[in-house]
Amino acid sequence: MDPDAVAKAFVDHYYSTFDANRAGLANLYQEGSMLTFEGQKIQGSQSIVAKLTSLPFQQCKHNITTVDCQPSGAGGVLVFVSGTLQLAGEQHALKFSQVAL
Amino acid sequence: MDPDAVAKAFVDHYYSTFDANRAGLANLYQEGSMLTFEGQKIQGSQSIVAKLTSLPFQQCKHNITTVDCQPSGAGGVLVFVSGTLQLAGEQHALKFSQVAL
Repeated sequence: MDPDAVAKAFVDHYYSTFDANRAGLANLYQEGSMLTFEGQKIQGSQSIVAKLTSLPFQQCKHNITTVDCQPSGAGGVLVFVSGTLQLAGEQHALKFSQVAL
Repeated sequence: MDPDAVAKAFVDHYYSTFDANRAGLANLYQEGSMLTFEGQKIQGSQSIVAKLTSLPFQQCKHNITTVDCQPSGAGGVLVFVSGTLQLAGEQHALKFSQVAL
């Protein structure tokens, strides 16, 4: 399968899960996973999901602008995403970017 | 040495080289390196530097806003950078983000 198509499918799945059921992101992280969120490093699926579910907003909608991917050298794929995050009740969307390895 | 300090030093070196002598970036890429630039994938040090030196501006100055790094799992480091790019003669700076693995 085309790596770009795999990356795009992963990104769609990740952000639709984030927007619909943030706790469901637990399945997309492992014990060795690390999330750096606004400079804070968080290790392990459980801690990562605790962070994401504790963010100070409930309803949100990610809109993806770009998805770039590259082979990571270890049989994996590096994915770089940018887009906007619309929070319920807020007039302006936030810009975001995120990397997954 | 602290991985964050290594990442910061690498980022400072990369962008000061970019701004002062773009052709000098050749030393920071290898044959197996890949650059994805605005969606275009470019492989190998020589092709990457040819792309970067052909960008339609001469003098530029990168200002770094954030540097985040994580161990990449293969003894390497994943570095995520965001900031602004000021081009000579342009009033407004461009926002940019870049990942190095």
